[in-house]
Amino acid sequence: MKAGIVGASGYVGGELLRLLANHGDVEVTVATSNKHKDEKVARIHPDLYGLTDLKFTGRSIFDLLDDLDVVFLAVPHGTSINYVPQLMESGVRIVDMSADFRLRDPDKYPVWYGFEHPYPDLIKKFVYGMPELHREELKNARYIAVPGCIASSSIYSIAPFASLDLDNNVITVDAKVGSSGSGAELDESKVFSERYNSVRAYKPAGHRHTPEIEQEIKYATGRDVKIALSAHSVNMVRGILTTSSIFAKTDEIHGWGLLREFYSGEKFVRLIMDKKSNFKYPDPKIVVGSNFVDLGFAIDRYINRIVSFGAIDNMIKGASGNAIQSMNIMYGFNESEGLTAPSLFPV
Amino acid sequence: MKAGIVGASGYVGGELLRLLANHGDVEVTVATSNKHKDEKVARIHPDLYGLTDLKFTGRSIFDLLDDLDVVFLAVPHGTSINYVPQLMESGVRIVDMSADFRLRDPDKYPVWYGFEHPYPDLIKKFVYGMPELHREELKNARYIAVPGCIASSSIYSIAPFASLDLDNNVITVDAKVGSSGSGAELDESKVFSERYNSVRAYKPAGHRHTPEIEQEIKYATGRDVKIALSAHSVNMVRGILTTSSIFAKTDEIHGWGLLREFYSGEKFVRLIMDKKSNFKYPDPKIVVGSNFVDLGFAIDRYINRIVSFGAIDNMIKGASGNAIQSMNIMYGFNESEGLTAPSLFPV
Amino acid sequence: MKAGIVGASGYVGGELLRLLANHGDVEVTVATSNKHKDEKVARIHPDLYGLTDLKFTGRSIFDLLDDLDVVFLAVPHGTSINYVPQLMESGVRIVDMSADFRLRDPDKYPVWYGFEHPYPDLIKKFVYGMPELHREELKNARYIAVPGCIASSSIYSIAPFASLDLDNNVITVDAKVGSSGSGAELDESKVFSERYNSVRAYKPAGHRHTPEIEQEIKYATGRDVKIALSAHSVNMVRGILTTSSIFAKTDEIHGWGLLREFYSGEKFVRLIMDKKSNFKYPDPKIVVGSNFVDLGFAIDRYINRIVSFGAIDNMIKGASGNAIQSMNIMYGFNESEGLTAPSLFPV
Amino acid sequence: MKAGIVGASGYVGGELLRLLANHGDVEVTVATSNKHKDEKVARIHPDLYGLTDLKFTGRSIFDLLDDLDVVFLAVPHGTSINYVPQLMESGVRIVDMSADFRLRDPDKYPVWYGFEHPYPDLIKKFVYGMPELHREELKNARYIAVPGCIASSSIYSIAPFASLDLDNNVITVDAKVGSSGSGAELDESKVFSERYNSVRAYKPAGHRHTPEIEQEIKYATGRDVKIALSAHSVNMVRGILTTSSIFAKTDEIHGWGLLREFYSGEKFVRLIMDKKSNFKYPDPKIVVGSNFVDLGFAIDRYINRIVSFGAIDNMIKGASGNAIQSMNIMYGFNESEGLTAPSLFPV
Repeated sequence: MKAGIVGASGYVGGELLRLLANHGDVEVTVATSNKHKDEKVARIHPDLYGLTDLKFTGRSIFDLLDDLDVVFLAVPHGTSINYVPQLMESGVRIVDMSADFRLRDPDKYPVWYGFEHPYPDLIKKFVYGMPELHREELKNARYIAVPGCIASSSIYSIAPFASLDLDNNVITVDAKVGSSGSGAELDESKVFSERYNSVRAYKPAGHRHTPEIEQEIKYATGRDVKIALSAHSVNMVRGILTTSSIFAKTDEIHGWGLLREFYSGEKFVRLIMDKKSNFKYPDPKIVVGSNFVDLGFAIDRYINRIVSFGAIDNMIKGASGNAIQSMNIMYGFNESEGLTAPSLFPV
Repeated sequence: MKAGIVGASGYVGGELLRLLANHGDVEVTVATSNKHKDEKVARIHPDLYGLTDLKFTGRSIFDLLDDLDVVFLAVPHGTSINYVPQLMESGVRIVDMSADFRLRDPDKYPVWYGFEHPYPDLIKKFVYGMPELHREELKNARYIAVPGCIASSSIYSIAPFASLDLDNNVITVDAKVGSSGSGAELDESKVFSERYNSVRAYKPAGHRHTPEIEQEIKYATGRDVKIALSAHSVNMVRGILTTSSIFAKTDEIHGWGLLREFYSGEKFVRLIMDKKSNFKYPDPKIVVGSNFVDLGFAIDRYINRIVSFGAIDNMIKGASGNAIQSMNIMYGFNESEGLTAPSLFPV
Repeated sequence: MKAGIVGASGYVGGELLRLLANHGDVEVTVATSNKHKDEKVARIHPDLYGLTDLKFTGRSIFDLLDDLDVVFLAVPHGTSINYVPQLMESGVRIVDMSADFRLRDPDKYPVWYGFEHPYPDLIKKFVYGMPELHREELKNARYIAVPGCIASSSIYSIAPFASLDLDNNVITVDAKVGSSGSGAELDESKVFSERYNSVRAYKPAGHRHTPEIEQEIKYATGRDVKIALSAHSVNMVRGILTTSSIFAKTDEIHGWGLLREFYSGEKFVRLIMDKKSNFKYPDPKIVVGSNFVDLGFAIDRYINRIVSFGAIDNMIKGASGNAIQSMNIMYGFNESEGLTAPSLFPV
Repeated sequence: MKAGIVGASGYVGGELLRLLANHGDVEVTVATSNKHKDEKVARIHPDLYGLTDLKFTGRSIFDLLDDLDVVFLAVPHGTSINYVPQLMESGVRIVDMSADFRLRDPDKYPVWYGFEHPYPDLIKKFVYGMPELHREELKNARYIAVPGCIASSSIYSIAPFASLDLDNNVITVDAKVGSSGSGAELDESKVFSERYNSVRAYKPAGHRHTPEIEQEIKYATGRDVKIALSAHSVNMVRGILTTSSIFAKTDEIHGWGLLREFYSGEKFVRLIMDKKSNFKYPDPKIVVGSNFVDLGFAIDRYINRIVSFGAIDNMIKGASGNAIQSMNIMYGFNESEGLTAPSLFPV
């Protein structure tokens, strides 16, 4: 099967290329980039030196659809909407990495993304690409809206607990994110000397993943919660840890039970419970390079709080990995195809 | 004036030595260490190579008091109580870096530290060494209990806002701490390959700085708040960022007004408000090496939340810097003596 | 095919486990560790959480040979010699990660390793596990001595140039190595706060890989060179860069020609020549996670010097990757089996 | 005394501002920057928040000389020559951070810097600002040419040994440099995600500090040596380690004797000889933040080589620190004024 990637010179596009290089059922034959057109893909994504001779093309994806089965849109928010209607008409399937079709309620777009959604009817045709919550829908999907990275870690770690009797419907989420989450574009604040060793609150309030998390918690549990999300960049390239404070009374046994039940049979979800390990709680260090989401929690008895952790590789389970896992389900491939690499430890 | 440091081979002791090396009024003449007795201080604290020929002594501090004016106790929690009564009798002044005399209410010790406080009456003789809140008391102090590092950053960033009308008396604090906060002792989880690139939730609930923060917020504002603190180690050596969610309605102008008023005239408090800088919010990167605490906040209008940040060098404003600043006040020295180094930027 | 790993709780053992987890022809059924016996492998190697339920065994490998085809010895130098004779008798094949059978000349052992080699005759039965130089021998091997990490990077980058007319038979090699190269054992100098940001000359002279490099340059080119090797630990976990100064006159075209010819058809050797990339010369950053060795050079016309670079993941092409590639050749498996993961970029 | 800094928004200019903020005899009253004119200095150099209200000026330095005693030129190579003649005429003293007046032989400029030096006669008026080698000249200087950072570390560590009987007059120097050495200017290869964890050979041959090192070795010892310098960026912000291979026969006692004699009485030179410390050889980690140069060596008996190390903070002893120390000598100030901060350890 043949795939094209629009916006393939960014980090998300690069990660799709990297993962699909080892996918038995998919070959990437088109990678578009205006900025790097006619350059070798491996110049920008040096992990692919020796693995591909593909070049970025500056041609329009619409001129290249004849040989493509699926198109990945690895473009900024607000840009996918310019591609989707015509792609749909062509009959190609779509995996959209942007936020443009994630929110079921079109009225959220002006509030959180600053634009009126031009195709509210098309949103319904997309399935939210989180296999653990939407596997059945994905089986019949043609269009996938891949979740946001912080949203993924938050949803995975909150959903199993949101059905508890909450003392407070506000859930505080503190996210620590590697630099790859903010892309490859040039900006003075990204210069190594300015960025190294920093803990940078880049979006302390109003983060756009907020409505996405609320939507999926509602979907999974029927509960209306409000998410108080603050996002920080920390001194690493890959990985996210989200720390969520859920104000409810429970104990360890019940908590683990909730997680086990919620994720029964899920092969990319790991519960981190070994207090004798150096890694007592989920830690991005031990997931980078893999499609795993690691989950765990602590109980704060002093104020009846569950401190719930999610750790993912933001580029894999937080983006391209979930995209591929969802695509595998959509096409009926082995769900793990292309995603079996262990994490790279230590690194 | 002559000072002795008990437990001088740890990082807190080392930082006292480093800062006092440039203090015009104090000379450190005694540095005790059982583990490193008779070794040169500069072997363990290599920043002091060429600056001191002092050796660690294995002798008891009690045999060395004749020539000392002040003793710094840089020992673990639960250990200072073994020194304080006899030191008091000797007439020497005490700056205690441990938690043993921080909590005014002795009943908190069994709950949070796991021991019954043996000298509840002596607690009253200590002043909490946070100059911005306790300057007048410090002028008449003989004994100083230096605040905890996470506690300091939390108190500085929460106190000005705690007088607002709170929607919820629970304040969530997420702390990101450098590795120096966990000391120099050997432990497999500290091995570089195991620790590099990690975001480690080392104390997600039940952190011992909790009652200290609550106590000082009460002291500063009269408010009873509950602190939901989660502490993480991040991939750096020095520095703390605390991110606190205070659920109250305010706006930017009022918020900055509260900070300005609360810290009027304080020379070690900086308000970080320049949105055109690479450093839009407090960031440990720009305080390391200095005695500054950087404060700033964002308003979350979606859920009436103030996201308040405090950034400090955990070893300086979070420990040895506040110790020295408090000592300066106690002795009537220039309050900034020994503390005027700018941060080291970039590093 | 079934494999056992002796000393499986170290980083080299862990990397064998990680890579073999995705090997289609080999299953690891035995992993020994005295220190961690009866503990789950995934506690120590958390990348394997969810991928294996294997536990470390404290039993002797000699009691477990019935079901094993091949034994990997991931033990310290001087220890493999205690295993090899009895393993040979049993008929099992051996892949030795230590230096005990790397040096063809037994007289080198007392000089460089401090022990008289007890089994000089057995050395001849081992093939040096560097496929690009010893592929034909490996096809008929039963016992493989896997090259050292710095040795590998040095040999790969020097051998093609050593046939030139040298102005000086001394070749200076400066190695920069990640922390994983010094293992997981506890040691105060490895504590994160002591190690972070350092550039540590850990073996400036007398490095044990010296005779190994000289031996293989001799093997490849017939030349007797002397290697002036200095090894440094730098601020990262994985990867090696070696910078070698070869004093000879050549130009870029001839230099690239030598490299191309020497490594013709080698799929794990990449020549880094793209001066428009962010990665103009080999850099460990772009090989970590892969089995590639990246090679490149600069010409110093001022003193007729070739500055030749080799970059590898010390754990893969510098240890477990070459072990597996050599094993694949020995058994006639697909030479790339288990080794096709691209590097993890960016990380 | 009043100082102006031309090009004050770069890292070298920032470091001058940082160090002079604590200098008792000098006040910086002018800081020029075209790019950041009229912006607060503290926006670009956030270490100076709260310490200065100075703004960058876009005015010409020539219009501001009336109130200045000394001008620091923190501008790129090839630019200082545009300032020096007119500044000299004005009577102001000059501390030039660029390379434009470092090389005594004007014929070196076309070869190494690509321009014909327009003022060969003015070169003679400058003293090379390395106090340990040129103190007497500095006492009578009016114009100082501050050494390059890699050159400094190399000269300090090679000069004491260059008087030995050399087997080979080529000395190999391998430099590992922090990112601050390549400045604050924007460039895709500096983006954090591209740069983190890398070991980047940025100037493997033809480095411009080469003739500067050769000149000063000649000056110090009368010897003509050739320097084979290769420079690498490593994963840190501040600091340089140079590893130099000097091919000569000596032993430890004689070697230490040479160093002690050469640097007798020098308070900013430290000899690192404590093999029981975590820091057995010079390491940038233990000098950052200070004006120290740390020196040490190992003897390679196998090939009669001295492996000599120099470690400095590239921004201090490698640039602004030597500038200030030299200026202190020129003006007869206390030579250590402004330079007494210990290194920041650990960081």
